[in-house]
Amino acid sequence: MSRTPYVAINIPNHGGEQRLGCEQLVRHFHEEITSGRLRPGMRVPPVRSLEQRLGISKNTAQAAYDELAARGLLESRARSGVFVAKQTDALERGPLYAASPALLHNAGVIPNPQVPQGRVRLDMVFIDPELLPREQLSDCVRSVLANPGLKPFYDAQGHPGLRAQVAERLNQRGMDVDPEDVILTQGSQQALDMVARSLKHKVIATENPVYSFARLLFANLGCQTVPLTLDPFKGIDLDEWEEVLRSHSPALVYAIPNFQNPTGYSYSTRELEKLLELSEKLGFAILEDDWGSDMLSGTEYRPTLRALGGRNVLYVNSFTKKLLPSLRLGYIVASPETRGALLAAKRLATLGNSTLIEATLAEFMDRGYYDTHLNRVHAELDVRYKACIERLAEVMPEGVRFSLPGGGPTLWLELPSAVDVRKLQERLQARNVEIQLPYGHFYGRQHLNGFRVSYAFPTRAAIHDALGVVAEELRALLSDGHA
Amino acid sequence: MSRTPYVAINIPNHGGEQRLGCEQLVRHFHEEITSGRLRPGMRVPPVRSLEQRLGISKNTAQAAYDELAARGLLESRARSGVFVAKQTDALERGPLYAASPALLHNAGVIPNPQVPQGRVRLDMVFIDPELLPREQLSDCVRSVLANPGLKPFYDAQGHPGLRAQVAERLNQRGMDVDPEDVILTQGSQQALDMVARSLKHKVIATENPVYSFARLLFANLGCQTVPLTLDPFKGIDLDEWEEVLRSHSPALVYAIPNFQNPTGYSYSTRELEKLLELSEKLGFAILEDDWGSDMLSGTEYRPTLRALGGRNVLYVNSFTKKLLPSLRLGYIVASPETRGALLAAKRLATLGNSTLIEATLAEFMDRGYYDTHLNRVHAELDVRYKACIERLAEVMPEGVRFSLPGGGPTLWLELPSAVDVRKLQERLQARNVEIQLPYGHFYGRQHLNGFRVSYAFPTRAAIHDALGVVAEELRALLSDGHA
Repeated sequence: MSRTPYVAINIPNHGGEQRLGCEQLVRHFHEEITSGRLRPGMRVPPVRSLEQRLGISKNTAQAAYDELAARGLLESRARSGVFVAKQTDALERGPLYAASPALLHNAGVIPNPQVPQGRVRLDMVFIDPELLPREQLSDCVRSVLANPGLKPFYDAQGHPGLRAQVAERLNQRGMDVDPEDVILTQGSQQALDMVARSLKHKVIATENPVYSFARLLFANLGCQTVPLTLDPFKGIDLDEWEEVLRSHSPALVYAIPNFQNPTGYSYSTRELEKLLELSEKLGFAILEDDWGSDMLSGTEYRPTLRALGGRNVLYVNSFTKKLLPSLRLGYIVASPETRGALLAAKRLATLGNSTLIEATLAEFMDRGYYDTHLNRVHAELDVRYKACIERLAEVMPEGVRFSLPGGGPTLWLELPSAVDVRKLQERLQARNVEIQLPYGHFYGRQHLNGFRVSYAFPTRAAIHDALGVVAEELRALLSDGHA
Repeated sequence: MSRTPYVAINIPNHGGEQRLGCEQLVRHFHEEITSGRLRPGMRVPPVRSLEQRLGISKNTAQAAYDELAARGLLESRARSGVFVAKQTDALERGPLYAASPALLHNAGVIPNPQVPQGRVRLDMVFIDPELLPREQLSDCVRSVLANPGLKPFYDAQGHPGLRAQVAERLNQRGMDVDPEDVILTQGSQQALDMVARSLKHKVIATENPVYSFARLLFANLGCQTVPLTLDPFKGIDLDEWEEVLRSHSPALVYAIPNFQNPTGYSYSTRELEKLLELSEKLGFAILEDDWGSDMLSGTEYRPTLRALGGRNVLYVNSFTKKLLPSLRLGYIVASPETRGALLAAKRLATLGNSTLIEATLAEFMDRGYYDTHLNRVHAELDVRYKACIERLAEVMPEGVRFSLPGGGPTLWLELPSAVDVRKLQERLQARNVEIQLPYGHFYGRQHLNGFRVSYAFPTRAAIHDALGVVAEELRALLSDGHA
């Protein structure tokens, strides 16, 4: 008999003293089918199963099925079993209460990082997959599988070996980090989620513009968000920030001090210091997102708030932008005081994350592949970065400016205020160049008018051509007058 | 030169027209070090790096480092580089604002599913790892790696092949599911998280007792939870449920209709029908958690709310309890109307999940391993279940009752009301038998007095012995009089 699944029959058990007869069985099935509880095409249990489950004889069960088949309610199919008949005149169930759509918020997030073919993606924050160490990672997976194999259980805080590696790496970069303070996460996004959902006083200040999924996430979790204006061409107006922070009293400042997303700006040491001083003076916590750090190179690093401010700064980073985005692996560095709350938040959200992925990364770092990879990537990104800014200087019309991050995957291209970025995007799409509209990054009115340009994802040749196209379309828009 | 990381030097760029001299460089480092921004043990950039970054001569840079070394602020280490000296009399930075502990909720979740050796774990909801197909899964990982290798990007909704497999499987079980309605999740926990965080009207009714991490999660996301009393020995008092649902008007009922956690109870078809009718009448949505379904066997299945109620029931299931918990893979089945909101919630929480794991499961199902595995597991669990209930009937003192789930990994052991479960737990711990205190499952006052017994995790021999120990300690407690 085939392996088509069959539905378990749920006949109330009257204590076992009462043995079902054929007639009762027929009545039960008849009612189940005509009421729509058993539906056309569903397989009913094999006779042998009824025999065992209900303690009736095989003959009784078979007789009941025969009677039901005669009534047109069941039908036998050779080598498949007995099914509820398609041509039954059972009631069609109407749709039940259309429960959910009106009950759910839709946070309205754009779905997918899939990459369509044949387009130059200036909008990506990822690294060109051709530069990623897929074979080395595969080797590490194989090694983890070979010894000691797939582990049945997960560690809620994350693989201890990888946590130790992360801590050692950060210590080498001037941070005082214990492996016990490291919590592995599903990309840095989960780390932001854990912090925001644990926050008692739900007010968070962020740079403006800012990584849009952070702002959406905070809002989705019921947090009020407060903008701190950032202009990559002017730096931070520290007096303005102090005033905003003083008047809104956020519990937390979420900051991306190196290679800020989306502007590419990096805080000066004075700005880092000042933010830490304000944190002490005004009593807010800091969540530092150091996403771009390891893209500077394998050995050079930039000062971080965590290094300067110590254990009171929550520090987030991720392997997503440096290795395969599909690994979904990041971490947060907490402190003995905050670890418990953050770990509880992680457990409530996902219980724990995939051990195989974590063990693979631990192996990858143990073998020293990570720094080798970063050095190699950095050399290539450096070439692309330089080519990108040279090309920008060469082709862009007057009035166009760009930030000079010197690292990270993107820079900010600022357009003359007369240009409508939406119109530019339409024209670029027609020429197979993809840019991202910047609106998601801003709190309402924008003090910048431009978009993020990736030099890490497209090849050098693609960047060269695409920027030529951008310049052409910009000139066309500007001379059209309907910029 | 070694690969010790070094900190990037952040000297304000005055437009490039001003070339730094040795004296300025010394002053800058002196200030950075004595203010504590550069700390003892940090490596400063190699001379060659200063030369390139700052556009100064190698001699200038070297002269500055020599002067700083003479002042005792820097020290050279052979083959490692130049470091901020340990014996510097730089200011020690005091701790900054102790930001976070007071600012974060601690949801107080018990951390880890690690399994200590040498104890019988009656408290586990997982399957004995010896029964899990680790080698087959490893083969599938290897196959995924070989062809076409690690994918750089993830699909936010989850691997399309696995979504198709899930949909087909559910269709065979009487549900009308399109692969587009399936969203893969990090275990079923993430699915619950996505629904709860998307809910507009944050009132959720659940069975009482209930899976404790669901209740904690809902509360953590600011939802009010409403208890629906469930007694595995009496079934559901539908009139009472209707009254509670009517008076509290929840937006959602979270139900575990098959092998309910923790009681092992399965709803009768009448109870399923009634809940759907109430959903229509009172206007609540249903989130069905079918965690235990596939433990019945590979082919037999039980009626579900989703099969009876159609696309208006959100259906959650997971591979965690049937395969390796460390895979962290589950799914939610939505509808065209709810998919967008739930996918947005997933993206905000984790962006997406590990492709390798999803692709591995797709391969595992494509090869037909899943049903073979379930049949094998089911045969063994059936033996353990029967042995468990026979042993319970044999050794338990008068007044002890137990539910008869007939599937799933656990049953509910109900004790005479005089027994203090906490005291029993203490005694059992001393004899290396682990049970879980039931309090987390209940809303305050308990109408049951017992605990969950796993027959899926310990071996048959271990269950036999452990239940003997439980019976002995129970008798001792009862005769002691201080039960």
